[in-house]
Amino acid sequence: MRIPVDLSHASRLLNHGPTVLVSSSDGTHRDVMAAAWNMPLDFSPPKVAVVIDRNTHTRLLVEASGSFVLAVPSAEQLEMVVGVGNSSGRDVDKFVRFGIGTEPASQVPAPLISGCLAWLECRVYPEPHNETTYDLFLAEVVAAWADGEAFRGGHWQDDVPPGRRALHHLGGGNFFTSGGLVRAP
Amino acid sequence: MRIPVDLSHASRLLNHGPTVLVSSSDGTHRDVMAAAWNMPLDFSPPKVAVVIDRNTHTRLLVEASGSFVLAVPSAEQLEMVVGVGNSSGRDVDKFVRFGIGTEPASQVPAPLISGCLAWLECRVYPEPHNETTYDLFLAEVVAAWADGEAFRGGHWQDDVPPGRRALHHLGGGNFFTSGGLVRAP
Repeated sequence: MRIPVDLSHASRLLNHGPTVLVSSSDGTHRDVMAAAWNMPLDFSPPKVAVVIDRNTHTRLLVEASGSFVLAVPSAEQLEMVVGVGNSSGRDVDKFVRFGIGTEPASQVPAPLISGCLAWLECRVYPEPHNETTYDLFLAEVVAAWADGEAFRGGHWQDDVPPGRRALHHLGGGNFFTSGGLVRAP
Repeated sequence: MRIPVDLSHASRLLNHGPTVLVSSSDGTHRDVMAAAWNMPLDFSPPKVAVVIDRNTHTRLLVEASGSFVLAVPSAEQLEMVVGVGNSSGRDVDKFVRFGIGTEPASQVPAPLISGCLAWLECRVYPEPHNETTYDLFLAEVVAAWADGEAFRGGHWQDDVPPGRRALHHLGGGNFFTSGGLVRAP
């Protein structure tokens, strides 16, 4: 079940470095891509950084709307993650092609991708130099959600099935899943 | 054994989102901190982004030298990673305090932290607005190295002992290790 995540805990949803999906919409068209190059940027207000290549269809929609959603997909979604990463929304409706379900977000027009582990609704900070020079987008997290079995009480849970672990892209369609929990002594 | 990594493969060293160590030196003083907030920024030339808080001693040394090294620590280094993340180089020589061995880097004054899985020698792109507003540092990778058992032939290896897997920080000293390899069908 999808539960709201307090904004003070939003950075934790990305802190372990998972590959994410970036969904976007300009109100008419929508798209989704995969992005390993993302990170938290601040705690309060929560901010994120993500690289969105200038040649992607997603980039057009993010620039048109000034917003996007980052979603943390799970290992059981691997085929879809690779699929949306290897195709362009210019050529195909990825939602139809990969059977992707969505729910409406609360603060932005981009959809929440069903079946993920967590979602961050984000509003872009206009930083034209970063966007033009580095394909780098900085944004404020304005709402956050998680699957209540994977993340609850402000913490990622370790007692989840292998299919409900996050994906960490190594390149070329190879991933490590999130492994076991370890703690400092 | 430490082996050179071709710069065209450097982004793969961070692509899966591990927590890194940031080492720095101004030629006289040196320091090391932990940083979960890092990501690749480009393939060629390879670039990285990392958040370095304005209140850290590391920040002073990075600003003085215009360079740093990112190292990917392994699970067996957990206690040291948490230690350098929870203390300040203003108060203590972390290398002495945590028994950290080093080797010289090839292109920058910051040291390579011994026992890690990979190292990226980085030169900062001066971007004062990002540094001042977001504590965000962008840098070019000018040399890269890896432990030849953990990363070889341009790929992270799956057949390593649990202690030689990377760490993914969840917050509060809790980490997931890198788990098993999965591939798209």
